[in-house]
Amino acid sequence: MIDATISGDRLLARCDALAALSETEGALTRTYLSPQHAEANALVGGWMAEAGMTVRVDALGNLIGRRDGTTPGAPAVMIGSHLDTVRDAGRYDGMLGVLTGIEVVEALAEAGRTLPFAVEVVGFGDEEGTRFGTTLIGSLGVAGLLTPEILSVRDRDGVALGEALRAFGLDPALWTTAARHPGDLRAYLEVHIEQGPQLEALGEAVGVVTAIAGATRRAITLTGQAGHAGTVPMDARRDALAGAAEAILAVEAVARDHGVVATVGTVEAHPGAVNVIPGAARLTVDLRAAEDPARVAALADLDGRLTGVAQRRALALSMDTMHDSGATPCAPPLMDALSRAIADRGGAAPRLMSGAGHDAMAMTALAPVAMLFVRCAGGISHNPAEAITAADAGTAAAVLHDTLLLLAEDCP
Amino acid sequence: MIDATISGDRLLARCDALAALSETEGALTRTYLSPQHAEANALVGGWMAEAGMTVRVDALGNLIGRRDGTTPGAPAVMIGSHLDTVRDAGRYDGMLGVLTGIEVVEALAEAGRTLPFAVEVVGFGDEEGTRFGTTLIGSLGVAGLLTPEILSVRDRDGVALGEALRAFGLDPALWTTAARHPGDLRAYLEVHIEQGPQLEALGEAVGVVTAIAGATRRAITLTGQAGHAGTVPMDARRDALAGAAEAILAVEAVARDHGVVATVGTVEAHPGAVNVIPGAARLTVDLRAAEDPARVAALADLDGRLTGVAQRRALALSMDTMHDSGATPCAPPLMDALSRAIADRGGAAPRLMSGAGHDAMAMTALAPVAMLFVRCAGGISHNPAEAITAADAGTAAAVLHDTLLLLAEDCP
Repeated sequence: MIDATISGDRLLARCDALAALSETEGALTRTYLSPQHAEANALVGGWMAEAGMTVRVDALGNLIGRRDGTTPGAPAVMIGSHLDTVRDAGRYDGMLGVLTGIEVVEALAEAGRTLPFAVEVVGFGDEEGTRFGTTLIGSLGVAGLLTPEILSVRDRDGVALGEALRAFGLDPALWTTAARHPGDLRAYLEVHIEQGPQLEALGEAVGVVTAIAGATRRAITLTGQAGHAGTVPMDARRDALAGAAEAILAVEAVARDHGVVATVGTVEAHPGAVNVIPGAARLTVDLRAAEDPARVAALADLDGRLTGVAQRRALALSMDTMHDSGATPCAPPLMDALSRAIADRGGAAPRLMSGAGHDAMAMTALAPVAMLFVRCAGGISHNPAEAITAADAGTAAAVLHDTLLLLAEDCP
Repeated sequence: MIDATISGDRLLARCDALAALSETEGALTRTYLSPQHAEANALVGGWMAEAGMTVRVDALGNLIGRRDGTTPGAPAVMIGSHLDTVRDAGRYDGMLGVLTGIEVVEALAEAGRTLPFAVEVVGFGDEEGTRFGTTLIGSLGVAGLLTPEILSVRDRDGVALGEALRAFGLDPALWTTAARHPGDLRAYLEVHIEQGPQLEALGEAVGVVTAIAGATRRAITLTGQAGHAGTVPMDARRDALAGAAEAILAVEAVARDHGVVATVGTVEAHPGAVNVIPGAARLTVDLRAAEDPARVAALADLDGRLTGVAQRRALALSMDTMHDSGATPCAPPLMDALSRAIADRGGAAPRLMSGAGHDAMAMTALAPVAMLFVRCAGGISHNPAEAITAADAGTAAAVLHDTLLLLAEDCP
């Protein structure tokens, strides 16, 4: 047991200290390559050094600490998450995963224990995409998945990423050096707040992520015939909004039938007057699934149901795919190690899908990935009300520590 | 048969001439007490005089022509509609009813026929409410239903009605003199384009209106819990928009079950992002019925269904009545006279509800009312594409003429 040297209180205090580094008064906003990003790297880098790690900032501004293992050249286990935030953010989304990694390395160091493999802790510079509108720049860079066009993306002030790197003190010409070589890493582990209500409902501090969901977003338009709300009999109508209502309920039914999640988040009726039958209606569908075949099957089912709605109501139907990304499955051996570590501490080790995106989506190109979710109050995230307990943070760090020991047992 | 002296072509040509009197270039807009209103009164007043009527403009700017009958002091039959328009209007909504009245009087005059009762033709100055935002000013004034506050309503340039009357050449202090005395009128008859698709679908030129619908408009808000589209399981959601979708379909079902018309014309989801479960949804309901008990019963049924939806989905429900007006039934003896006149010319005399409002709603306070609807292309109205045929216009005028003869037969 290493609990004496892992402190959930210290973890939360460090999250609080990081939350003070913000671009916005009275709210937490810290974007990629901002002065506050540099301050965060300095603060977190200091904690890494205290934990006995060698610390560097890579060519894309990612902060990386490393504690070597006993076997030189053995692939490292990387632990991490991101240090950037959305606007008016909570203080745990991203930061918790970085600080948990440091807490674990600190516990290893205090116990004088060196693992067969090196342990690296990474604080990615960009995951949220808040500044440049494109997400995961930090982890995609480390995974070697960026293309040169990335240097030309601009923030809302017109500053290109290349210029922002230079202003941050980096040489944009060296951006490719952030990429790690295949074989550098044995595993990538990420601790993150759940951002959903399931662990709270189950009464569990932590859970094991099975996959980061694949997602498809579609824009759907139904077109009928506008008309006077008083003069067109019900059986002569081609009411696009009534069709959209059936579509919204079909999305919900398809999600339940296929065990996926699906959401209609926006809807518009046109022309949109109290006394006019809507001639057109637009809505969006966001459908996510841990397994791609389930998502594909659910979408096909939905297409059939929407086509049926349109035919029955004599409406024209158009569907436009706005986004489509496959699922990122977590590696079963890593999931099993996390589960065993949780069970050893009395947890039920529930397994759950991540509906939100994470750096692990990029890192899976480089190494097997796994994620540990931490219970958060009310499932609230991307909001200053984001909250976790010190006890749960301590549990997450302890589980991660024990998981490293389990992985060490598997080393030849 | 008087067809030789009734001309549908002349009726349509006069509608065309009136359409040239517009405040807006390339579109027809003619609002109450505008210079174009004065021009319209002059033009139409000239046609009234040609038809042998004495012509006056009352204290509210309504144009009234009168042809006396054989029995002095006998209550008159008033025929009319309005001369104002919506913005970017069609050329028949309102004007057709005024010009049909003139056509009928002209036919009587040419035949040298004097009825026992006087025939008046009125062109109300305001029905649409386009200028002052309050409808039926002309007919409410004639019916004696206005209150002094009406002089203070202002147009969007801040001009009060009282000032506008003065600018039109009228004395605002005399506004109450527009009101006719109970007993002045035996009946009010209004010819109007249907503004709906029913006569076209039936292949009938004209139809008899049973009632002008009563209408209730409600704003409905459903409130649930916003959440991340990827992280909240389907069975943990309180999706306000999914509830709104059920509400929209309930509105449609209630309309069918109760034989009324009901429309959801607007809907909003909040916060309204593709990847956020809507925490609130707002929609409007417009429900109309020819008979008030049917409207009341349908609303009660709808209330029950919406309450059920809210309960099943754990949503908060609020309903706000924005508008509530009773139906205006047409007088059965007048309806029967219209039906007989139609049948004598080979029409099926279909009966239909008016879902839109008309001057007859105000005039029912003064006299029994009836309306004759004329087939319009595609049910289109409040649109430059508004269209009728000369043959149908001629039929409407002939039916109205014959109806007056039938009413004359009933005179003692």
